[in-house]
This record gives sequence, structure tokens and C-alpha cells, in this order.
Amino acid sequence: MSATTSDYLIAPSILSADFARLGDEVDDVLASGADIVHFDVMDNHYVPNLTIGPMVCEALRKHGVTAPIDAHLMVKPVDRLIGDFIDAGASYVTFHPEATEHIDRSLQLIRDGGCRSGLVFNPATPLHFLDHVMDKVDMILLMSVNPGFGGQSFIPGTLDKLREVRRRIDASGRAIRLEVDGGIKPDNIAEVARAGADTFVAGSAVFKGRSTQDPHRYESVMREFRRALEDA
Amino acid sequence: MSATTSDYLIAPSILSADFARLGDEVDDVLASGADIVHFDVMDNHYVPNLTIGPMVCEALRKHGVTAPIDAHLMVKPVDRLIGDFIDAGASYVTFHPEATEHIDRSLQLIRDGGCRSGLVFNPATPLHFLDHVMDKVDMILLMSVNPGFGGQSFIPGTLDKLREVRRRIDASGRAIRLEVDGGIKPDNIAEVARAGADTFVAGSAVFKGRSTQDPHRYESVMREFRRALEDA
Amino acid sequence: MSATTSDYLIAPSILSADFARLGDEVDDVLASGADIVHFDVMDNHYVPNLTIGPMVCEALRKHGVTAPIDAHLMVKPVDRLIGDFIDAGASYVTFHPEATEHIDRSLQLIRDGGCRSGLVFNPATPLHFLDHVMDKVDMILLMSVNPGFGGQSFIPGTLDKLREVRRRIDASGRAIRLEVDGGIKPDNIAEVARAGADTFVAGSAVFKGRSTQDPHRYESVMREFRRALEDA
Amino acid sequence: MSATTSDYLIAPSILSADFARLGDEVDDVLASGADIVHFDVMDNHYVPNLTIGPMVCEALRKHGVTAPIDAHLMVKPVDRLIGDFIDAGASYVTFHPEATEHIDRSLQLIRDGGCRSGLVFNPATPLHFLDHVMDKVDMILLMSVNPGFGGQSFIPGTLDKLREVRRRIDASGRAIRLEVDGGIKPDNIAEVARAGADTFVAGSAVFKGRSTQDPHRYESVMREFRRALEDA
Amino acid sequence: MSATTSDYLIAPSILSADFARLGDEVDDVLASGADIVHFDVMDNHYVPNLTIGPMVCEALRKHGVTAPIDAHLMVKPVDRLIGDFIDAGASYVTFHPEATEHIDRSLQLIRDGGCRSGLVFNPATPLHFLDHVMDKVDMILLMSVNPGFGGQSFIPGTLDKLREVRRRIDASGRAIRLEVDGGIKPDNIAEVARAGADTFVAGSAVFKGRSTQDPHRYESVMREFRRALEDA
Amino acid sequence: MSATTSDYLIAPSILSADFARLGDEVDDVLASGADIVHFDVMDNHYVPNLTIGPMVCEALRKHGVTAPIDAHLMVKPVDRLIGDFIDAGASYVTFHPEATEHIDRSLQLIRDGGCRSGLVFNPATPLHFLDHVMDKVDMILLMSVNPGFGGQSFIPGTLDKLREVRRRIDASGRAIRLEVDGGIKPDNIAEVARAGADTFVAGSAVFKGRSTQDPHRYESVMREFRRALEDA
Repeated sequence: MSATTSDYLIAPSILSADFARLGDEVDDVLASGADIVHFDVMDNHYVPNLTIGPMVCEALRKHGVTAPIDAHLMVKPVDRLIGDFIDAGASYVTFHPEATEHIDRSLQLIRDGGCRSGLVFNPATPLHFLDHVMDKVDMILLMSVNPGFGGQSFIPGTLDKLREVRRRIDASGRAIRLEVDGGIKPDNIAEVARAGADTFVAGSAVFKGRSTQDPHRYESVMREFRRALEDA
Repeated sequence: MSATTSDYLIAPSILSADFARLGDEVDDVLASGADIVHFDVMDNHYVPNLTIGPMVCEALRKHGVTAPIDAHLMVKPVDRLIGDFIDAGASYVTFHPEATEHIDRSLQLIRDGGCRSGLVFNPATPLHFLDHVMDKVDMILLMSVNPGFGGQSFIPGTLDKLREVRRRIDASGRAIRLEVDGGIKPDNIAEVARAGADTFVAGSAVFKGRSTQDPHRYESVMREFRRALEDA
Repeated sequence: MSATTSDYLIAPSILSADFARLGDEVDDVLASGADIVHFDVMDNHYVPNLTIGPMVCEALRKHGVTAPIDAHLMVKPVDRLIGDFIDAGASYVTFHPEATEHIDRSLQLIRDGGCRSGLVFNPATPLHFLDHVMDKVDMILLMSVNPGFGGQSFIPGTLDKLREVRRRIDASGRAIRLEVDGGIKPDNIAEVARAGADTFVAGSAVFKGRSTQDPHRYESVMREFRRALEDA
Repeated sequence: MSATTSDYLIAPSILSADFARLGDEVDDVLASGADIVHFDVMDNHYVPNLTIGPMVCEALRKHGVTAPIDAHLMVKPVDRLIGDFIDAGASYVTFHPEATEHIDRSLQLIRDGGCRSGLVFNPATPLHFLDHVMDKVDMILLMSVNPGFGGQSFIPGTLDKLREVRRRIDASGRAIRLEVDGGIKPDNIAEVARAGADTFVAGSAVFKGRSTQDPHRYESVMREFRRALEDA
Repeated sequence: MSATTSDYLIAPSILSADFARLGDEVDDVLASGADIVHFDVMDNHYVPNLTIGPMVCEALRKHGVTAPIDAHLMVKPVDRLIGDFIDAGASYVTFHPEATEHIDRSLQLIRDGGCRSGLVFNPATPLHFLDHVMDKVDMILLMSVNPGFGGQSFIPGTLDKLREVRRRIDASGRAIRLEVDGGIKPDNIAEVARAGADTFVAGSAVFKGRSTQDPHRYESVMREFRRALEDA
Repeated sequence: MSATTSDYLIAPSILSADFARLGDEVDDVLASGADIVHFDVMDNHYVPNLTIGPMVCEALRKHGVTAPIDAHLMVKPVDRLIGDFIDAGASYVTFHPEATEHIDRSLQLIRDGGCRSGLVFNPATPLHFLDHVMDKVDMILLMSVNPGFGGQSFIPGTLDKLREVRRRIDASGRAIRLEVDGGIKPDNIAEVARAGADTFVAGSAVFKGRSTQDPHRYESVMREFRRALEDA
């Protein structure tokens, strides 16, 4: 595994932030050391929940957010919303291979729109969807919980799956980020990094302190994550 | 038509607000004299757009919004999200009759959850869906534009449709609100009120001044609406 | 209303019978005076439940049931199952107008198959689906509860809806049965009959005594129904 | 009924023509006196058949057909194909109200694209879908058979339905064509015209003589239709 | 292959039993030596047939059946019916990986409900759906015919597929049952067992003698199966 | 790779032909040396386009086309149209594995209908759908562009995928054709053939000269293809 500490990216999921003042939340978490904004899009069809769409992404850009926004589409079908998120200023757009029959074309749409493209794997989704697209993805996201359902903890089998994807990425010789999403905490992030992940979505672990008014409220947890990653 | 000026409710649609600081936007528009928060939920299936879901509604409640929240579900199917919006603190939940085969049951779900129920009619949707549910709706919402598509102006045929619904409501002897949504501006609200509407959704007309920092920035437009309604 | 007492048909819904010995249940309830077997078919798509399909209907015929079987299809789409129920020996096949875009054709399929055809109306479904098919239906079924959900009681608005359908039937001069389904009990059947119904589905009210071993266990409730109908 | 003989339009359905030489077929039938080309589009979802799409329409235009092309969309959903048929040179685009929840918008799409718009009614579809769109349709098409299924004959109830639509059109004072499709033959066209239709789709009745090589092979049937219409 | 004769389970499919007296049928076949009740659930969407749902399963439990009930869900979507079958007393609940995008979660739902979980593979379905769930399944079911269609015989390629699954199970070191369904008869069961199956669904082969009144009518065929298995 | 030059088949896609005189186009291109007619069926659901259906196929047969017609179904679901194309005279019927859950059965339907069967792989579709059906396919078609979208060029990754399929075919010892579709031109056909393909769909490259009146207008391009294949 070739990633070094400085390569690790922490991507707070704004699903756990305060939607009533999302601009400030995102500003604060980025100021606290987060690298990317993870943006969870659910449509009540691919997953049984409906969250936020392209207008909210666009509002963050207008608010002044310049960090990468990583739009994770838990939607079906995907193509129309891909276009919307490109227009709304997303940096990464990732989707689930089961959500479209035209994976190659959807990846291409994303890149043609100037974004980075990615595929997301549910815990049980086989990795063979990667077989013919390693030259078309900039990011591979492994779900370590089932998307769309709250209160779950990290599925241990994800570690083996991460190792297998890491092998595929290294074999490809390409600069593909390996992201993991679900149940990431300071006490398991090192192990997850050792299994090959280099980008870490964290939701409740980051924003649990959000009720306080302290503008530095997210710094300590970010420091915990960084420290744990140094051990990895 | 029996509604008096004091009965008129103005319901800004937060789709036109700044999603990066939604709590403040809602606070300010309510402080400026708005009566209800109109909350547009789109799922990219019933309409070709995805907006905001129950978590955003819940965030407004936690932020301290106590005014009625009027959740307009442009989604299909409707039943699961009805439950989510009840839990998220919605006051009204309305849906489109074409979006479910079990209209009576969905209306009942809303009332059983302690909310007020309503049906929404697209511009071309016939009114016969009202025939057997006048005792089960607290609000009837007529769309005066096609939902889910931006940049439209008020469809004139809505006035006749409003008159027909007003007749049905008056004949029923029930306290059912008659809401209208789409292209409502200070210069047509009086005519719309005369046709029978008593609740007015306004989006871009209200929030067009949102870019300024003035905390009273929404007062003048609200005053224009009120003054026009006095003429009605 | 022109129906006389002898015209009234009581149709126990076998959904409330004991599925482990359905043949005997049906034999017993028919021996107790029931007229028709009401057969509720749910597919977990049109309604959120899955019950029994054509093989069970066929088994009743092979078991020796000769009474009319009234297959109520709460399914979507309808056409393939219409064919299956014709083959399985159904006498009536009814379906919901929202469940197909080709109502005329589906009614014709049923009659071409030698069965009697019907349309079923959910509590909120407008009656206009009858406008162009009065010459193609042998039965009109009004739901007095929402299909597919248990534990509901008779929706009072059904009485007005029954009167309106009765007027339409009488105006047509045709021999169309008017059936009602949901919450029918000995203490409301007379009122329902006076509103125009002539065929009565009853489920839990009939089979509530099913746990006893008495072969005459369904006679007393059937007598109660008949006596109430004499008052109508 | 205000239409005069010269207003009657005959619209051969190219579904009955020879698809191997469609350009010639269309040329010949127009030369024989047909007024419009009726173009039946089926997608194997709205109806159980798949026929021809926009590329075939475009080919007719490139072939030199200048007569109006009347694209009848038996598809669901409708909006994307509406755009395709506008681009392909259709003159009329009509669709079924059950095939979209946004009827008003779809009608508007058609007119915005420079075409004439219309709604199509299946034999059992109620007419109330016309209630709020009489100012938005240029054509109303009544199906006198069930679309998508071959070998049917004219459904007699269509005559009453035609009369009702004719009354609505006359009451509107608008120039809306009233088209009928299914089982139209020289021996019933007069009666259909008397019921109010002014545009007549004919398929097998026109093209039955297509196997001969005579370039005038469609003239005699067209003359029969015209003569019958003079009697109307 | 490690299974011994005593491990072999025979699972009659009640689809071939007499639905008019299902309780007795199940009692008799269990008394004749069957081990499990195989319960085929079809919803007319995942497969073109509709059979029996949770109420029938519950009726068998109330009737007194204590043997394991193995509910094979040929339905799409799966999650709501999983809950229903847990409540109805199923012992195993299996489903098809193509029928849900959230395989891991559905397996977990089953186990959380106290049942044993399994995945079912259609004849052409690749085995890679097993890659990340071997710790979450208690049973793997290979279809040796296409589900939902009658009158088929055992597909020979199933033998190789059984061997491959047997290798995967043995490699996992887990106690996962390997079931096969379709065309199993006394004359091929030994070969199927040798390929690695340990649980055998049999339908028409078992119940073909059902028309006789002999309470021991299923014993001889069960003995045939057992004897053949001893040879395996 | 075992195919010899004489084994190579060129399959012009009639999507690029002139639909106004399809019979002549097909006659001319076959006379110019084409081997098979490639017939692209799109339903606006599996891909966002609607093209031509079974009636057009049947018209070609009636017109006198005797060459093999290779119907490529870009439709979902597939089974009903499979039957239609068998009846319409197709020689090959191929479909996409994502378009049905019952791949084995659909393949069997095709062969039972007297046609040759095949599976089609989108650029990103993994090859594991072949694992259990090598004895049931007569053709494997690899898409080298994304189906349903115009103006694309050959995806280079297809070459590796062709080699992998060629290995599988050779390992099976079966006579399975390996077809490729998308962006095939005289200047890349040799390389594609060397990667293992033996059947080549070509659309715009063949029909680009169609506007001229020369009856030999397709001969030169066919000669270019043949010459390039001799080099392979």
C-alpha cells in the first residue's frame, strides 16, 4: 500500500451536520482540518430515505465553499442527477453500479462534465463491476454499512474487501482514491487505513459535538483521526 | 367566498431561500410577516428534480422554528415519506392523488400522525379526486405552474379552477384551506384571492432580495403582499 | 332500489378463514348459507401484502366447490392474472381501474374467458371510471375500507357513494351487482343494503367463530346477516 | 356539429403499410387523397407492442413527405419522446393522459416545439382529463379500439363519447380537431362523422390492397371514404 | 464433501400439495419422513406467477406444524415480505440477489428476526454474489430449473455449479446448507448429492400420489429418496 | 484464435440505413457483400431511444430478405419481444443480461423458437454472466460503445475484453460467434479481428454513402472491410 499520511483525506458527511446552518457547519469542519465535503444524496428509491439534492450543493458553492465536494448518489436512475450535480459544482460524483445499466456511459458523463468519477460498492456487491472500468474511475467507495439506514456499525468484512480493491488499484498503476464510508471512528480508522483505504467518510463521529457553540468544536476529533492515521 | 383578510396566509417556499443558512432565512422571513413555511419535497421520480427531505425539516424544528411547516410531497410513492415528515415535525403534509392508489389511506395516515392533510392538483389534474374525501382534507393545493420545473409563470386557467374548488369547499361547510402555488406575485395575489384562494405560496418573489445582509430584507415584499390582499 | 331480500348475496372473504383447511372452511360456510366465495388476491405491489393466487382457487374447484368464486384482484398489472384466474375456475374477476391503462380491454378479457367482469373502487377513487363501461361490467365493488390493510372499520362515506352507484346502475337498466367490502357486520348490513348494495363481503364477522369444532359454527352469524337484511 | 365535408381529414395509419418501402407507401397513399400520415408509436410498456420511433419519422421527412405527420405516442413516460418527435419533424404529437402525471407540461412541450398538441382517450378513459386543458389541445383523439392489440372492431360506445367531446369542443369555441382511431371503414365512417369526428384514422381498410403493384391502388378506397363522408 | 446421509434433508415443496387441505398435506408428508416444508412465494413480478403469502405460512404454524418452514421468496422487492415471514413463523427465509440492491441488509434483517438466511441462485446467476456474504448466509439454494415456470426438468449444468458452491462452503469452514430445487427425483437425487447438495426440494415427485386417500401415501416416495441418498 | 477469413461476417446495422426504403437498402447492402442484417431494437426504457420493432423485421422477410437477421434487443423486459421476433422471422435474438432476471429461461425461449440465442455485454458489464450459460448461447456480442447513444467511437478496452471472451469460447470448444458492435471502421476492424471477434456490426461506416443513387454504392466500403480482414 503506497499512500502516505499526507495522502489521507478525511471527508465529513454533512448528513450529520446541522442542516439549519449548513454553510457554517461546512466552514467550521473544513477549518478544523477536514479535506473534502461528503455529500449524501438519497432519493427514497435506491435507498429508503430522501436527503438533499443539487440545490443544496449549489448553495454551498455560493456560500463560498471551495473544498472538493464529493457527491455520493444513492439514487436510481443516475444520469439526470449526474448532470445536475455537475452544474451544482460537485467535484466528485460517485454512484452504485446496480443503479444503472450503462455504467461506462455514466462514468463518462461525469468526466465529460469536468468532475471526478467513481463507483460505490454496497457491502455485498461483488467487485467484478470494476473489471472493465479501472481506466474510467477516479475513486472507488466501499460502503462499510448499508446505505440509507441509520445506527449501524462498521462491517468487519470490509477490511478484506478493501485489501482486494487496493490490490486492484495498485495493479492498475492508476491514481484512484479508495474511500470507505460507514462506522469510521478514531479507534478503527488506523486499521481501515492499513487495509488500503486513503479517504475516510465520517459522520456522527465528527459532528457529535455540533451542539456546542465553540467554533473550534470539530478540531479535537479531527486531531484524533489524524493521530490515529499516523499510526497506520 | 368567506375568507377575510386576516385569514390570508402567506407561505414562502424555502426552495428559493439560501440553503446554506436555512435556519436564519426561515427566521427572517417569519419575522418579516410570513405565516407558514412551505417545504417542497421532490424525489426525482414524481418530478425531475431532487430537493430536500425530512432531515432538513427536522433541523428547522431543532433550530427553533415554531411556525407551521407545510410539507408538499412531490414524490411517488408517498406513504413512507408521510411517516418521515410526521416524525420530522411537519404541520401539514400534502401529496398528489396520482402518486398513490390509496388516497384515503394516505390522508388518514397524515391525520393519525397528528398533522393536517391535503391533496395537491397539478394544472391539468381533474378535481374529481375530491369527490369522496372532502371530510378527510384540511387543505387543497392548486398548482398554478407545473411542479418540478423552474422559471414558469402563473397559468391563468388556475383562476377558474380556484373558483370551482372554492364552491366545493363552501358547499361542504368545512374549514379547508385553499392554497395556490406558482407564479404568485404582489401584482396578481389580489386576483388569486378573489378567485377563492386563502393561502399563498411565494418563492422567488419573496426571496429575490436575499442577497442583501439587511435583516429586514423580506419585510417590504411581505408588506406588498398584505397590501394587495387588502384590496382583494 | 329494486333488489329484494332474495337477491342479496353474502360473500365470505376467505382471507379470514383457516388456510390450513380451506376446503372444509369453504364447504362449511357455504353449507351455513353463504352464497359466494370472495377470494382476495394481493400481490405486494398494488397493496402491501401478498395473499393467495390462482393455484389456491383451482384447488377449491378440485375440492368440489361449485358456488361462484369472486376473485378480487388487488394486483398491478392485471392482465396476466386475469387469464390465470379464468383458467383456475373463477366466476367473477374484478380489478381496480388504477391498476391498468387498458380497462376496456381487461374487462373484455374477463368476459371472453367466460367469467363475469367487474371494477373495484377504493374509498377515494372517483366513479368516473364507470362513465364508458356500464355495458361491460357485471359487478361494481365499492371498498368500504382501504384494501390490503387490516383492522379497519366501515368508512361512513361509502353510503353516499353506494347511492350514487345505485342510481347509475338503475339508470343503465342493466343487471349489475353492487358489492361492498370492508367492515360489514350484522349491525350495519341493513343500512348498507338500503344505500343500494346487494352483495356483501364479510370476513372476520363470519369467521370469528372458526376456532370451535362445531360444523354448524357459521350458521348463527349467517342467520344474523339474513335477519338484518330482511329489515332493509 | 360545425365541420363541413371539406374539413374532414383522412389519416392512414402507416402501421398497416409495407415497412420495407415506407416512403413509397406514404407517397402513394397521399397521392390517392389521404390528408395526414398517422404514425403509431408503441414502446412495449404503455402497450404490449413495439413499433417505430422518431428515426422512421425523420426518414419520411427526408424522403420528401410534406403532409402533416400525426405522431400518436402510445408510450410511457412521454416527455423525452415528445422532444424526439419534434426534432424528427412531426406535425401533431398526441399522448395518453395516464402516461404522465404532468399533462399540462407535456402539452406545453409540444406547442413550445412548434407542433400541435393532443390528448388520446382509451375506450374506458374518462373525459375529465379535458377539464382544465381545452386551451392547450389542438386535437382530441378517441380510441375506438384498445390500442396495441390487433384484430379488433369499432367499439359502439365510442359514438356517444364522440358526441360528448363534440359538445365540449363546440362549447369551447376553439378549433380543436376530433380524431377517431380503430375499426374505421367506409361503411361506418359516415355515422362516426355524424357523431362529431372530423379526422379519421384508417389502417387495414386503406392498406388492404397494398400487395398489388398498381400505383393508384389506394385511390378507390379513399374515394369510398370520401363518398361516405359526403353522406354524413 | 462432508455431509453424511443423516445430514440430508428432504424438503417437499407445498406448491405441489393440495391447497384445499394444506394442513393435512403437510402433516402427512412430514409423518412420511420429510424434514422441512419448502414454501414457494411468488409475487407475479419477480416471476410470472402468484402463489401464497405469509398468512398461509402462519396458518400452518397455527395448525400445529413444528417442522422448519423454508420460505423461498421469489419476489421483488424483498424487505417488507421478509418481515412478514419472520412474523408468520418461517424458519428459513431465502431470496434472490437480483431482487434487492441491499443484499447484506436483507440477510441481516432475516437473522435479526431470528430466522436463518439464504441466497437463491437462478440457473444463470453468477456465484459472485456470494463473495462478501459467506458469513451471513445459513443456506445457499441453487435453482436447477427456472423459477416460476412449470413443467421443467433438471438442468444438468447445475451439477458443476453445486460442486463450485460446495468448494466455497467447505473453504469457508461454515455450516451452510446447500439446497437444490427443480426436477429432483429418486433417480437423480444421488448424483445431485454427490455434487454437494445436502437439502433437496421435491415437488411433483413427492405429491404425485396425493389423490389417493391413504394416510401413508407419501411414505414410499420418501423411502425411495432415502434409499437413493444412501447410495450417494 | 481459430476463425479464418472466410468465417468473418459483416453485419450492417440498419439503424444507419434509409428507413423510407428499407427493403432496397437491405437488398443493396447484402448484394454488396454483407452477410447478416443487424437489427437494433430499442424501447426507450433499457436505452433512451425507440427504434423499430418486430413488424419491421417481418416486413423485411415479406420483402424477400433471406439473409440472417440478427435482432439485438436493447429492451427491458425481454421475454414478450423475444416471442415477437421469433414470429417475425429473426435468425438470431440477443439480449442484455441486466434486462432480465431469468437469463437461462430467455435463452431457452429463443432456442425453443428455432432461433440462435445470444447475450450482449455493455462496455462495463462483467463477463461473469457467461459462467453458467456457455452451452446455451450461439453468439456473444460485446458493445464497443454504449448502446442507445449516437456519435461515439470504439472503446479501446473492448480489445482486452474480446480476448477474454475468445479464451472462454475456445475453452468451451463450442461454435459460438463473437460479435462486436460500435465504432467499427475499415481502419480498426483488423485489430478487432485479431482480438478475437468474428462478426462485425458496422453502421455509419457502411451507410455513409447512402445518399447517392448508385446501386453499387456499398460495394467499395465492403471491399475495404474485407481487405482489412484479410490482414488480420
